[in-house]
Amino acid sequence: MSETPDSAVHAVRTYIEQHRAAFLGDLAEWLRIPSVSAQPDRAGDVRRSAEWLAAKLTETGFTTVEVWETDGAPAVFAEWPSDDPDAPTVLVYGHHDVQPAAREDGWHTDPFEPTVVDGRMYARGAADDKGQVFFHTLGVRAHLAVTGRTAPAVNLKLIVEGEEESGSPHFRALVEAHAERLAADAVIVSDTGMWSETTPTVCTGMRGVADCEIELYGPDQDIHSGSFGGAVPNPATVAGRIVAALHDEHEHVAIPGFYDGVTELTDAERALVAELPFDEEAWLRTAKSHGTLGEAGFSTLERVWARPTAEVNGIGGGYQGPGGKTIVPASAQLKLSFRLVAGQDPAKIELAVRDWLAGLVPAGIRYEIVFGAPTRPCLTPLGHPALKAVAGAMSRAFDGAKVRYTREGGSGPAADLQDVLEAPVLFLGISVPSDGWHAPNEKIELDLLMKGVETTAHLWGDLPTALLATER
Amino acid sequence: MSETPDSAVHAVRTYIEQHRAAFLGDLAEWLRIPSVSAQPDRAGDVRRSAEWLAAKLTETGFTTVEVWETDGAPAVFAEWPSDDPDAPTVLVYGHHDVQPAAREDGWHTDPFEPTVVDGRMYARGAADDKGQVFFHTLGVRAHLAVTGRTAPAVNLKLIVEGEEESGSPHFRALVEAHAERLAADAVIVSDTGMWSETTPTVCTGMRGVADCEIELYGPDQDIHSGSFGGAVPNPATVAGRIVAALHDEHEHVAIPGFYDGVTELTDAERALVAELPFDEEAWLRTAKSHGTLGEAGFSTLERVWARPTAEVNGIGGGYQGPGGKTIVPASAQLKLSFRLVAGQDPAKIELAVRDWLAGLVPAGIRYEIVFGAPTRPCLTPLGHPALKAVAGAMSRAFDGAKVRYTREGGSGPAADLQDVLEAPVLFLGISVPSDGWHAPNEKIELDLLMKGVETTAHLWGDLPTALLATER
Repeated sequence: MSETPDSAVHAVRTYIEQHRAAFLGDLAEWLRIPSVSAQPDRAGDVRRSAEWLAAKLTETGFTTVEVWETDGAPAVFAEWPSDDPDAPTVLVYGHHDVQPAAREDGWHTDPFEPTVVDGRMYARGAADDKGQVFFHTLGVRAHLAVTGRTAPAVNLKLIVEGEEESGSPHFRALVEAHAERLAADAVIVSDTGMWSETTPTVCTGMRGVADCEIELYGPDQDIHSGSFGGAVPNPATVAGRIVAALHDEHEHVAIPGFYDGVTELTDAERALVAELPFDEEAWLRTAKSHGTLGEAGFSTLERVWARPTAEVNGIGGGYQGPGGKTIVPASAQLKLSFRLVAGQDPAKIELAVRDWLAGLVPAGIRYEIVFGAPTRPCLTPLGHPALKAVAGAMSRAFDGAKVRYTREGGSGPAADLQDVLEAPVLFLGISVPSDGWHAPNEKIELDLLMKGVETTAHLWGDLPTALLATER
Repeated sequence: MSETPDSAVHAVRTYIEQHRAAFLGDLAEWLRIPSVSAQPDRAGDVRRSAEWLAAKLTETGFTTVEVWETDGAPAVFAEWPSDDPDAPTVLVYGHHDVQPAAREDGWHTDPFEPTVVDGRMYARGAADDKGQVFFHTLGVRAHLAVTGRTAPAVNLKLIVEGEEESGSPHFRALVEAHAERLAADAVIVSDTGMWSETTPTVCTGMRGVADCEIELYGPDQDIHSGSFGGAVPNPATVAGRIVAALHDEHEHVAIPGFYDGVTELTDAERALVAELPFDEEAWLRTAKSHGTLGEAGFSTLERVWARPTAEVNGIGGGYQGPGGKTIVPASAQLKLSFRLVAGQDPAKIELAVRDWLAGLVPAGIRYEIVFGAPTRPCLTPLGHPALKAVAGAMSRAFDGAKVRYTREGGSGPAADLQDVLEAPVLFLGISVPSDGWHAPNEKIELDLLMKGVETTAHLWGDLPTALLATER
């Protein structure tokens, strides 16, 4: 940690410093495009985001840049072949769509007008995921500049999709349709974070997610709770009972079959988790929460990294305006999501939820349940040599600091890439827990963003050797 | 039923027919005033409604008409003394405020533009309660016209409050402040309905109601359900668990102490209820519901008339917009109401709910609970001779039909009048279950509205004899 940086580290930093301002200006321009994939009226912005990125990648030097259509939002594909015929191929994954955001949700600044304060850039998508996609543009330029190459040491490919925040409903089909062009020896997913500013880490897995919306219909319209209340089923009451039935008294998910096939943590993995410098009070501050609650028998980190969950994302029904209204509501709605871990099959989870729900809705209440496209869970093979290369490159960017292993509780379509391309998936992200993903005032730490650039600048030089050591 | 109407019945009908068109025109004018007491921005309309009514009562002939201020919306008091020094005093109760209504809730016409179709007038407040207050204006004129009197046979008083749909928070204080001027030998409440168009009934009791709003606060803002879900308490989940804890598996309210003091139905009362021509399919159509569900061991009518309930009027939390949003919500809200029956004390119910709730909210969730002003339950003494007078007057209006007894599941501040004025409370209403109280497309049947006019025209002549038979 107190060693003098090697000359490559110095050269990379010098190059990056010279280009930092222009790089951040470009990123801000991208962040101004409100590419919210969940909101149909933002479809034009999502497309504009894809086109903006495509132009920027061409400017960066990628020799092939294409906007790929899907049945939903467009993705961007880019390729920059190595001039070394033996070079391995790396595919970088990220996404250019963002979560919904509105000033009135608690943002201190316009979510789509990037604002730099104290070395942080605040904007929706700053960390999730535009900032972390964008560091690859300067990273590959730095790699070329310090090595004197005219083409990267790896065949570099990028796939940047536009529907990750909507559950990537068309991503698997896209990957399947373009499997040959996406083929790679390793996939680098840049859509996760690391432990903290001072503890660089490489993520080795993400949870999957399945989500559904449930509509419950009772009376044909809101009816008088005095005249009819107590004698007819109330859909808002049923919604509450469904929520309550999600968990047992130990906070285990109570849906029959939910845990079938779950890959349990080994004792060694639990030991690795326990070694991390976890400060629950600090974690709670990051979570902006005032207490922990979760599945009995597991630590907080185990709960968010390695255990499946059932969560209520939204609930609504009846009168929510000012004052009171003595009604039995006509309808109620639930938005539920289930985080999944390795070994769980989203299709089986959907069936389990449907069966469970059918037993909870009384006569007189009609219901509909619609599932979104699921995202499968993903785990990096812990023994893969490329993992060591990623950790090594990151260590150089972080002045020789020891790089540890974590997982992420969030979800991404990494498993689709792993399954379809039959390639190992690695995670490279520099976002920190305080970045506020999906929350108001999302931001990225600019110094860490530059560490991301540095890491990739080293990695593209290091990876060929590491991957040649692997059976290809 | 096939008897020739007596001459008074004929005279009353003739008089009413002559004045029907003008009467309905006036009512429509009143219904155009959107006097929604639950919405603060409608306060001016509620005042306008009171002033409109006061002017109309003066025009009718009431000798004293005053708008009474409260700490909330104004009430209207009117008095028309008898010229008979021995005349008993009757106080009529109603309200001039209405439930919220918006075209987009499912109204076929503007809720504040009365529309007559097929003998029905559609408007918010047509039945609840402006129409049923207003029939008293023509009723007393008809009474005078057919008897040749210049003043009523009873000392007639009216109190028409402006906050009934908000739980009458200031009504008891108003009655206490003006107890001497409101003093009466009997109170006639015109804010209920009858069994059906063909089965005239007199209501003998109403349920009370206590309501509360519960706010549940979890994270300081919405947080990522992948990064934090499964390890922190979710306020929307807690809201669901509170809802589920309201009832046990037999649909009994499960709040400890909730049933303390409840006046149980006697076998004789249950037999009277069972005698009514109840058609559950027809009742369900009126309830616009698709099944019955309620407390085990009781019939549908017993459930809505004589059993206390816990109802979810509104629930909300997290993301309710289009698409999904994978968050743990920052907060959730519940609006609950509890219908109460004779023997239950709203103050004790509030304490029971607060104690119960405190045991349901986990560490890490902060909550607030606010109760509205309760409305107490009310029961008419079944043996009171005035009840016979009301039933008799109604029978004459309905061509000699047998008048039966019912209760109402809804709530009104009748109990305050009973308690403070120490007077028996009787119910006189001509609304029918299909009138859609609190629902879109509320209406009043115009022929029944005129039966209400007829009933009062007879009643003011009949009541002196009936009440003189009572210990005064």
